[in-house]
Amino acid sequence: MAALAALLALSAQTHAQAAPHNGPAAVRTELGKMWLFENPPLAYLRDEYGFAPTQEWLQALRLASLRFGNWCSASFVSPRGLILTNHHCVRDNVADASSEDRDLVESGYYAHSLEDELPLPGLYVSQLVAIEDVTDAVLAGTADASDPGRVEQRRRANEQSILDDAATRHPDLAPEIVTLHQGAAFHLYLYKRYEDVRLVCAPPLQAAHFGGDPDNFTYPRYCMDFAFCRAWEDGRPADTTNHHFSWSGRGAQDGEVVFVTGNPGSTGRLLTHAQLVYLRDAQYPLELQLLKRRLDILRAFVQQFPPLEPALRNIILGDENSLKATQGYYRGLIEPQLMARKRAFEAEFRAAVAADPKLAAKYGDAWQALAEISAAKTALEAPLQFHSPAYSAHLTRALAIVRAVDPRGSETERATARELVPAIQVQVSPLQQALFIDHLQRATKWLERDDPYLVALVGDSSPEAGAIRIAQSRVGEDDVAQELLAGGMAAVEASADPAIVAARVIAPLADANDAAARRLEEAEAVQARRIGRAIFAVFGDRVSPDATMTLRFSDGRVQGYAYNGTQAPWRTTFWGLYGRHNDFDGRQPFDLPEPWLAQQNRVDLGAAVNFVSTNDIIGGNSGSPVVNRDLQVVGLIFDGNIEQLPNRFLYRDRSQRSVSVHTDGITETLAKILDATPLLQELGGVSDGR
Amino acid sequence: MAALAALLALSAQTHAQAAPHNGPAAVRTELGKMWLFENPPLAYLRDEYGFAPTQEWLQALRLASLRFGNWCSASFVSPRGLILTNHHCVRDNVADASSEDRDLVESGYYAHSLEDELPLPGLYVSQLVAIEDVTDAVLAGTADASDPGRVEQRRRANEQSILDDAATRHPDLAPEIVTLHQGAAFHLYLYKRYEDVRLVCAPPLQAAHFGGDPDNFTYPRYCMDFAFCRAWEDGRPADTTNHHFSWSGRGAQDGEVVFVTGNPGSTGRLLTHAQLVYLRDAQYPLELQLLKRRLDILRAFVQQFPPLEPALRNIILGDENSLKATQGYYRGLIEPQLMARKRAFEAEFRAAVAADPKLAAKYGDAWQALAEISAAKTALEAPLQFHSPAYSAHLTRALAIVRAVDPRGSETERATARELVPAIQVQVSPLQQALFIDHLQRATKWLERDDPYLVALVGDSSPEAGAIRIAQSRVGEDDVAQELLAGGMAAVEASADPAIVAARVIAPLADANDAAARRLEEAEAVQARRIGRAIFAVFGDRVSPDATMTLRFSDGRVQGYAYNGTQAPWRTTFWGLYGRHNDFDGRQPFDLPEPWLAQQNRVDLGAAVNFVSTNDIIGGNSGSPVVNRDLQVVGLIFDGNIEQLPNRFLYRDRSQRSVSVHTDGITETLAKILDATPLLQELGGVSDGR
Repeated sequence: MAALAALLALSAQTHAQAAPHNGPAAVRTELGKMWLFENPPLAYLRDEYGFAPTQEWLQALRLASLRFGNWCSASFVSPRGLILTNHHCVRDNVADASSEDRDLVESGYYAHSLEDELPLPGLYVSQLVAIEDVTDAVLAGTADASDPGRVEQRRRANEQSILDDAATRHPDLAPEIVTLHQGAAFHLYLYKRYEDVRLVCAPPLQAAHFGGDPDNFTYPRYCMDFAFCRAWEDGRPADTTNHHFSWSGRGAQDGEVVFVTGNPGSTGRLLTHAQLVYLRDAQYPLELQLLKRRLDILRAFVQQFPPLEPALRNIILGDENSLKATQGYYRGLIEPQLMARKRAFEAEFRAAVAADPKLAAKYGDAWQALAEISAAKTALEAPLQFHSPAYSAHLTRALAIVRAVDPRGSETERATARELVPAIQVQVSPLQQALFIDHLQRATKWLERDDPYLVALVGDSSPEAGAIRIAQSRVGEDDVAQELLAGGMAAVEASADPAIVAARVIAPLADANDAAARRLEEAEAVQARRIGRAIFAVFGDRVSPDATMTLRFSDGRVQGYAYNGTQAPWRTTFWGLYGRHNDFDGRQPFDLPEPWLAQQNRVDLGAAVNFVSTNDIIGGNSGSPVVNRDLQVVGLIFDGNIEQLPNRFLYRDRSQRSVSVHTDGITETLAKILDATPLLQELGGVSDGR
Repeated sequence: MAALAALLALSAQTHAQAAPHNGPAAVRTELGKMWLFENPPLAYLRDEYGFAPTQEWLQALRLASLRFGNWCSASFVSPRGLILTNHHCVRDNVADASSEDRDLVESGYYAHSLEDELPLPGLYVSQLVAIEDVTDAVLAGTADASDPGRVEQRRRANEQSILDDAATRHPDLAPEIVTLHQGAAFHLYLYKRYEDVRLVCAPPLQAAHFGGDPDNFTYPRYCMDFAFCRAWEDGRPADTTNHHFSWSGRGAQDGEVVFVTGNPGSTGRLLTHAQLVYLRDAQYPLELQLLKRRLDILRAFVQQFPPLEPALRNIILGDENSLKATQGYYRGLIEPQLMARKRAFEAEFRAAVAADPKLAAKYGDAWQALAEISAAKTALEAPLQFHSPAYSAHLTRALAIVRAVDPRGSETERATARELVPAIQVQVSPLQQALFIDHLQRATKWLERDDPYLVALVGDSSPEAGAIRIAQSRVGEDDVAQELLAGGMAAVEASADPAIVAARVIAPLADANDAAARRLEEAEAVQARRIGRAIFAVFGDRVSPDATMTLRFSDGRVQGYAYNGTQAPWRTTFWGLYGRHNDFDGRQPFDLPEPWLAQQNRVDLGAAVNFVSTNDIIGGNSGSPVVNRDLQVVGLIFDGNIEQLPNRFLYRDRSQRSVSVHTDGITETLAKILDATPLLQELGGVSDGR
């Protein structure tokens, strides 16, 4: 453990000292505030908040922070390995730990003693203990870019030997290579993993998920989205005496400076204007129309056939969630101010590159290349989406039959397809048929009139008639399918079965589309890496890299904002939680669980439930601790508001907010509703008589 | 009184029977649902709600409804003349009835007995007792439209004799001629006026106006914006046994069909596309920029000089309110869907006119005429706004001096100006100067570069320098002013005083602008009347006329809606009222008055406070009763949500909602907070043990 302790002290320090700064004005927060621990923007923090974090402070911040599984964030909040995260981060694990007659997600769970803590097999948390810059080693021998395929191969080989070497040097740590700035830099992260994680406390779903999907991505909000786990080592609670956050007695306060640590998953702030235009004009419109129409169809079916509701509920909820998020991204891209700022930044960036002959020669044409790639992707989008069997089981099976005999494919491809055929069930449901008709309707809107797919599937008739024709195919009958497979390409080519005829058209179209898409993707990655290197060359480390699902910290302030024509408060209280339950007459998903209703009179209704701050977060930050300058936890990130969704492309903080559970709300819940006295005591620092 | 009783039974009946209907589909609710009592859309109501109101029902609805002063709406809610309206409708009257040491607006007021009811001198309420169609009489002798001035003169003379005749026939009633469909029809309305109105109950301002200007035009909402008055006659409470609404014990329910009566003030739903484009591209942008910049300046001053705050508070609040409303209208006009629907309706309307040779000859060119007028108004907008002394006291006085000696003016005009001069105080404050500089800055943006105003006021220098130069004028000195007045035009023309020099330029510009604006306004009125007649000719009475500050009724449903990415509940409760107070730590304007805080434990927190419905309302509807089919009051209109603002141009009900105080909230307040037992008893129908 001594080696580890030494490592804990290492890394961030050396890198932080090396970080050059041209003053805080030089920090470009429009590209984000997801700071690297190896490059903290010290001058910016000092000028913005009059706060100069020491290396000890930064190290303590880092070591108390965790990646939770590989999908969320978390933190240590006691000396005995107690972990704070979101309920929704551990939900699947709690479901797995449930039994037929005991649904712990629904009922919640509280372990009154260590013995009662519930193992969550397969779950692990990762603590980032060391960081090394391995850029040169990763890129060794990749200078000749003429063959992108070989470059990739070489890079992957380099990465593997770096990982192998790390594993030898630190057999007790998990190594990971992080690609920063779209490939301009590569850092080796070494994690300590805690692999025995147990459940300490999870509130019932209806409190943790209060407001359900409707309230998702919104604020004012009233979610008790927290859970406590514990890391165990050697059959004992892990000793985290030297790296945990203490629990704040006051919780977040209005205007307070707060820091969020966590593992933001993915942002697109380095995307060029042309790449954003592709998203805005091609990918998102198609996706939004698909989601909206599918939701209409699914809802209509549920209304017409109520027994279908349980089966379709999760699909509908998932589509609603995707629709809300994608609409949020899309709204950002059609908002003139956002695009104007993206254009302005790009103009400034390109001018800086153009002004330096060396940079100009190296990177100057990357934007034009990306513009061409984006235009090609835009043209390919509709064919790529629509040249498919979509929801038609007949077409899916027919396509497998065609591929199983197609001489253009490899032997392996044919064998795979052949195996697939009998597995494809062909039972046409009215729902499948409606979705397939919708696919054809959308295809007629987006594809050229003379597109071969349209000609084959719709022709001079209508999408409805086309779908009915395909449904008359007999490829669903096993003997028909076997006969075609046995007859090989000749039989397939001779077949007049409507699905086979259509599949013969679709197969080469889909193959060509896939190949084109793959080529464009590779080309885009190459150019994106050049953009990343250019940004690094021009702005150095004055910009935070796009999110990489690895540890960052983000500064911000607790702050309300203008919303809905009026003001959103910086925090909500139990008044509003009970209020929203009552406003909707306790109807799902605004139905508080029984203990909340039973203890209503005990609860301090003025205690804070949720609050908002300007920290820069995105998916992956769920479960992130919000800490104050004294490294006390004052809140727990669980969402962003709807205004924050376009922050995926540009960080702004006028009305864009991160949404957290307030520690007061957690304390109040533990004390008055869950009677979790031992847990409260372990959190300590709670001395206001609760 | 017997004659009155007969009249009460009259009117609506005959007109209603005469109303032809081509089925409910023919009703064009996009033009609104502000129905005339003389033309109720019976077939539409039957098809929409399965509800066929009888003539008795309609008459009862009409006679219990009131116009409150000439700015609001109200209703009788007891047999003894008890009137329900909004607190904000009677606020100025309550202020007038207050004394130095007793601010009844702030403290609220409750009359425990009839003797305690507080006279509100000057206030009257009007009950619409009879309606006559006087279109032919108003338009007699106005067929020759070649001279708009003469037409107007004749029409006014006709109206006067109609009013005179009405006064002779009904000396106890107040007559009023209502111009419907932009002048396509004229109806004579006869009102019974109650001129002795006394205050019964007004809650304290902070409950009635809870959330203040920030929450204005928004929902979810928590306003106790109600007040009770009483109509007295002959020293006794008025006998309203036969025309009042009863008080609902349940109040509005989710999904319920409800009717709103009241006096909507003004809508612009018959405006042509060209007229809307003028608003969108000329009037609103200029107005919005003025408001935003002025607010910036005022707020900066208040921040720099806090003692100025009380003096500027109302100006700032007023500007904020105007900004919010105008932004709402403007947002509607830049919203593609709204404009597409306006265009589609206009295309359909014009096609119908074009299809009928007689109509085409009569009205076919009205749209083109309005397009030309709108283009001219657009061109005139900036000169009209900017060719003025604006905030400069020097310029204002200099302009009066110029006008006092200008031979181009009439003797009267010169005399008026001469009298004005000494009254204009010239003391330049930094605030005035900042506003004047802003005026000049905006002028340089909107006026042509070579505009004579700009040349004279700014020239080759800057707006700042121009404003400083004007401030060096000596016209503020009385002897200088007197000397110029005495010297006449010669002295003024010889003067090198910077304000006089500028005023000499401004005077003819302003005169020309005013004359042009007047001509355009007259021409627009003539064409608007043609559009009104055309709509009447095409759609008959299947459309509700634009608002005219006279009595209408509007159907709708109690219904929540999608907002802020989630759902707004159909009603809010006391939970949320106390919640919003707590979320903002009771900071103004989210500060509940003491009795609300003191009685918190008595109040049923689940009782409804406010609710939303799809009724069609606008300014003037404040104080309108919301009644159910049984003519029980279930709510009290007091606002619309921010989504509803564009309904000024097009009625929609997806997320556009009217906002009402729920009668439960009023009952609960009277019972638990104000201890207004006698008032509760008078309302009757409250038998649930409160």
